[in-house]
Formats: sequence, C-alpha cells, structure tokens
Amino acid sequence: MRSLLAFRPETAAPITALAQFLLHAPNSLTRGERELIAARVSALNDCTFCRSSHAAIAACHLGDEALVASVVRDPDTADITSKLKTLLEIAARVQQGGRAVRNEDVDRARREGATDMEIHDTVLIAALFCLCSRYVDGLAAWTPEDPDFYRQRAALVAEHGYADPVATPSPDSTSPRS
Amino acid sequence: MRSLLAFRPETAAPITALAQFLLHAPNSLTRGERELIAARVSALNDCTFCRSSHAAIAACHLGDEALVASVVRDPDTADITSKLKTLLEIAARVQQGGRAVRNEDVDRARREGATDMEIHDTVLIAALFCLCSRYVDGLAAWTPEDPDFYRQRAALVAEHGYADPVATPSPDSTSPRS
Repeated sequence: MRSLLAFRPETAAPITALAQFLLHAPNSLTRGERELIAARVSALNDCTFCRSSHAAIAACHLGDEALVASVVRDPDTADITSKLKTLLEIAARVQQGGRAVRNEDVDRARREGATDMEIHDTVLIAALFCLCSRYVDGLAAWTPEDPDFYRQRAALVAEHGYADPVATPSPDSTSPRS
Repeated sequence: MRSLLAFRPETAAPITALAQFLLHAPNSLTRGERELIAARVSALNDCTFCRSSHAAIAACHLGDEALVASVVRDPDTADITSKLKTLLEIAARVQQGGRAVRNEDVDRARREGATDMEIHDTVLIAALFCLCSRYVDGLAAWTPEDPDFYRQRAALVAEHGYADPVATPSPDSTSPRS
C-alpha cells in the first residue's frame, strides 16, 4: 500500500486524508471501534494486507489482540457492545454491495443508540475499505506475512494517525506488479 | 450523492478531489475513456445513480450516447480500442474483488499499449466506484429516474469537473435515509 501511495502521490493525498478523517479524527465512535470496522470489512474482502494492518491498529487502541481477532472472525459472538454489533452488521452488508443494506439494519442500529452520523461513517469506512482492498490486491502490492511488521507500523499509526507515516513518498517507489 | 456530500463536508472534500484527479485532470487516458470505466463498474455494481451519472458524463465527452450504452452493456462487442477493452476487463475484475485480477489481464493490457500508470489509474477508478456505489446505495440516497436530470448535470461536470458543482454543501442537506 505504501509503495502504491508513493507511486501516485496525487491520489495518495485524498485517500490518506479520507482514512485520517474517518479513522483517526475525533468522532463519537472510538478509534478502536472504527479500526475494528475497517479490519472486519477487510477480512470479508479477503485482503490480508488491509486486515492485518487495521487489526493491528485496532489492537493498539484497544490493548487486546484476542478481542480484535474475535471481532474480525465473528462479531456476533465477540465481547463488544450491541451497538457496535449492529454497525458491524451494516458494514458487512456494505461489503456485499450497497443494495444489501436493509432499512431494518439501520433501524436496529438506531435502536441500539447509533446516530445518523455514526451510521454514515460506518457505511463510508466500509466503502473505503472496499476501495483499499481492491487497490492493494488489484495491483498485487507486496503483502508482508510477519505479524511484527504490522505491529510496528500499527504503533506509529495509532499514535500519529495516517497523514505523516503514510503520505510521504519514498524514494524507492516501484511500479505496480514489477 | 450530492446530499451525502453535503451531509459530511469533511469526507466530501477528499472523495471529490479523488474523482476530480482520476476522471477530469490531464491523463493519457481521455476523460471519455475514464468515465466509461466509471460507468461500466457502476453498472456491474448495480448502482443506478453512479451508472446514469457517469454514462451521461462519458456521453458528453464522447458525443455518442449509443456508444456509451454499448460499452456499459458489453465492452467486448463495443466499437472501442482493443486497449480500452483490456482496461475495462481489468476494471470488471477489480469490481469482483482485488484478487480477481490476474497477471495475464495486466499482461494483455500492456501488450495493447497500456502503461503502468494507465493500469494503476484504471484499478483505482474501478476501486473508487466500488466505494461510491456502496456509499450511495448503502445510505439509500435519492436516485432520480429522469435521464434529463443526468444529462443536465453531466454537461456541467464535463465542462467544469467535479470540484465546483459537487463540493459546495447545500443549505438543504438532509440526513441519510430520512
């Protein structure tokens, strides 16, 4: 992902800005909750890089790798709030396609206390990770397998956000699939 | 889509900037070609708003509604270049999921003369419209049915791009699904 962003700085800037705002900026959903939505959608997209990255960042925020793993695997049986479960259900439906979201899914989230803004942001986080997974895997970007790679990057992103560590083009940017 | 952008200006800005750069800024792919990719992916996403909007904008650039309709329906039989057909095939695979893109799809596009940057931008346009379709339909945004609605908006976007007509929040913004 970083090499893709470096390959095309003109598109890296708005993608990074969108991630920064949706995942790191102040929000009534915690950073941990928003990263869980990103990680869960990435798992449903079968994108190893995005799932590993955002699960690791969620674990930094929440301080509990096992909890994150349980949410990514099956939110319904995970130890999270009912409200977050309804938002993760909306996110899973967005992953299938926009038309898969039903009014009853939105009504259920509202009954659990979700605001219109939280529902909006959940849908857009899920949609963003449908973009990111396709971008990373569609161009066969390098995907590390070592969990420590993700833990180290996650600590930086959890503390500083997406703007600084990701947006800076590196001098060794390479062409996609080269 | 415009009411969604007005509902959340902080996310509208980067989404609009990404669309502006990918679809309207100077590029070795013409504006018409890039809008065809957007319209075709939106049709595969079954998103009436995005398909109608970008088919109409493509028709403005290309001056041929029938050609656009044939590309949206079936690029393989449409009267377009072999190179654009290979890019539309990559875009269709991105729509299915990032892992659906095969090395042979990329090799075929390269053999038809596509550059790495054009392949990159095709993948990202396709990924962006997987975001947009989910955003619009996931929040059940208002979708006009009158073709003249899309023709009129398309003429403005084709001439001025995405920044001006779309990014300005309107005072009558409404909540999603209200």
